[in-house]
Amino acid sequence: MSTMNRQWRLKKRPVGDIGKDDLELVESPIPDLKDGEILVRNIYLSVDPTNRIWMSDIDQYMEPVGIGDVMRGGTCGIVEASKNSGFAPGDFVIGGMQWETYSILPGAGKLPADTGLPLTAFMSVLGATGMTAYFGLLDVGKPKEGETVVVSAAAGAVGSIVGQIAKIKGCRVVGIAGGPEKCQHVVDKFGFDACVDYKKGNVLEDLRAACPNGIDVDFENVGGDIMDDVFTLLNLNARVSLCGMISTYNAADDWTGPKMFRNILMKRAIVQGFIITDFLGRFPEAQAEMGQWVMEGKLKWDVDVVNGIENALDALDRIFTGKNVGKQLVRLSDDPTA
Amino acid sequence: MSTMNRQWRLKKRPVGDIGKDDLELVESPIPDLKDGEILVRNIYLSVDPTNRIWMSDIDQYMEPVGIGDVMRGGTCGIVEASKNSGFAPGDFVIGGMQWETYSILPGAGKLPADTGLPLTAFMSVLGATGMTAYFGLLDVGKPKEGETVVVSAAAGAVGSIVGQIAKIKGCRVVGIAGGPEKCQHVVDKFGFDACVDYKKGNVLEDLRAACPNGIDVDFENVGGDIMDDVFTLLNLNARVSLCGMISTYNAADDWTGPKMFRNILMKRAIVQGFIITDFLGRFPEAQAEMGQWVMEGKLKWDVDVVNGIENALDALDRIFTGKNVGKQLVRLSDDPTA
Repeated sequence: MSTMNRQWRLKKRPVGDIGKDDLELVESPIPDLKDGEILVRNIYLSVDPTNRIWMSDIDQYMEPVGIGDVMRGGTCGIVEASKNSGFAPGDFVIGGMQWETYSILPGAGKLPADTGLPLTAFMSVLGATGMTAYFGLLDVGKPKEGETVVVSAAAGAVGSIVGQIAKIKGCRVVGIAGGPEKCQHVVDKFGFDACVDYKKGNVLEDLRAACPNGIDVDFENVGGDIMDDVFTLLNLNARVSLCGMISTYNAADDWTGPKMFRNILMKRAIVQGFIITDFLGRFPEAQAEMGQWVMEGKLKWDVDVVNGIENALDALDRIFTGKNVGKQLVRLSDDPTA
Repeated sequence: MSTMNRQWRLKKRPVGDIGKDDLELVESPIPDLKDGEILVRNIYLSVDPTNRIWMSDIDQYMEPVGIGDVMRGGTCGIVEASKNSGFAPGDFVIGGMQWETYSILPGAGKLPADTGLPLTAFMSVLGATGMTAYFGLLDVGKPKEGETVVVSAAAGAVGSIVGQIAKIKGCRVVGIAGGPEKCQHVVDKFGFDACVDYKKGNVLEDLRAACPNGIDVDFENVGGDIMDDVFTLLNLNARVSLCGMISTYNAADDWTGPKMFRNILMKRAIVQGFIITDFLGRFPEAQAEMGQWVMEGKLKWDVDVVNGIENALDALDRIFTGKNVGKQLVRLSDDPTA
């Protein structure tokens, strides 16, 4: 067993794009376990658009990561040592929230054993990603059968699942993604009715063609100009489930708002921001239903894995440059379920 | 009885501010009544920010006024002749929707007789203005006792009533208005806890001082920079009742959106546009409660009357330049209740 931990610490707050020296990878010895604690060898790190928000000090939904602190991010791993009677070596757990190869925790969420699913499923479709899709679509977007749902970043971790749930609920589902390959993938693998390639540069007209009855629900992951085009086509009483606005997170100064904000008024629409932790108490019901869909083959997912903690920033960059297809993970150590 | 009608017709769509020759006042003979019709001598015309929207051909919540058509706007008046058994000369009615001195209608909303209230009350606190305040605050903004409610255009027709209802519901109420006189009036007459003078140019800091517990409900009438400042101070799970954005209606080209739109995400807030006609079926319940508050002296209101249909555009301009205090009306003919 390695006795050294490797951790990414925030050195300074990025201005615009994340710079190579905004964070540093440092090594330190792993302290001894105290009573009640467990030592977890982390296997996967989730990198997400919101990591960029946590690096900044804008007013946000959690505390920003402090300068000098270990970067925040979801991990899963395997218990290697335990001084907590609830955990034994070999247990798979989730809930460490730091960019590091080992975590000492007072406990963590134990993952179900013997599901036949790989560990990556619990870091994607059945993890926070899947929960975000489930509650953001069903509780915030409130789609009705026959309505048109538009999903931006449709090939991404959350978007691809949102579209499939909307299909299960009987909606017309139109994705927005970058490039013909991603668009084809979204239609072929995830069953979207159509997918608009924003790189073709004609989003408004392509969306109009793909949504002949207008847009009833916008599951918004991107913001910026693409959101403006979606807002332009909103139907009366449309709902915008505001999950994220990745296109704006790297803006060095003021973010710009949607020019078509006026359509919220004109169409008596609702825009609602949400964060998945608001729904923590309802995760079990969602996981049960999502798990059922997974077992029935109704719900597919992609994971996109980069190897090695030293490549965590490259993995994050893949999201901001649209290179990832599906849930972006960093493999920190061997995955016995893979 | 005059036999000529005077009507404002839309000649061309304004670009930016409304120009003197965008509309024209024309005279035409009043046609004979057919069976089922009533002839109404209009007494008051309501001029409202939304008139500017109807003059444009942007995608909006009703059809724009057609070029050459009589301009749209709410009126009330008195029946002068009737071929409809439901109406008799002398009845006061509401519901003509054109800028004209006489209306021939198939019927209209009859106003209650003998209330002791002037006709102007039914064009303000107990009319569409009051209904907008009531449903926009209570159904859309959903204020809870002890919360902080911010109201822009607080000295205006809707804003002044919103603030009073919020006070009745036990909220801290902070207005935003232009100039020290309006602000003082909002506090003295309408009982707001504080009022920020946006003309002092320090809206964000003044709002912060007036809202030490942040902002839970924004009743938004103004849009633009002032809305951005309000958005900056939104609390977690804040509600924005989007009633109007008068500051943007004269923009000749693209409207700009709120820079602090991101706070809808960060604060998991809800922005909801509404239009009062969505609540038509519930007007009676609201009018009953509002009427009670009026009788008890809990609800006050201002009307700001300009005389003569020829001055309708000047009256509308008073709203866009912030000259009006309270509900802006145009008196088209003698008011026997005044």
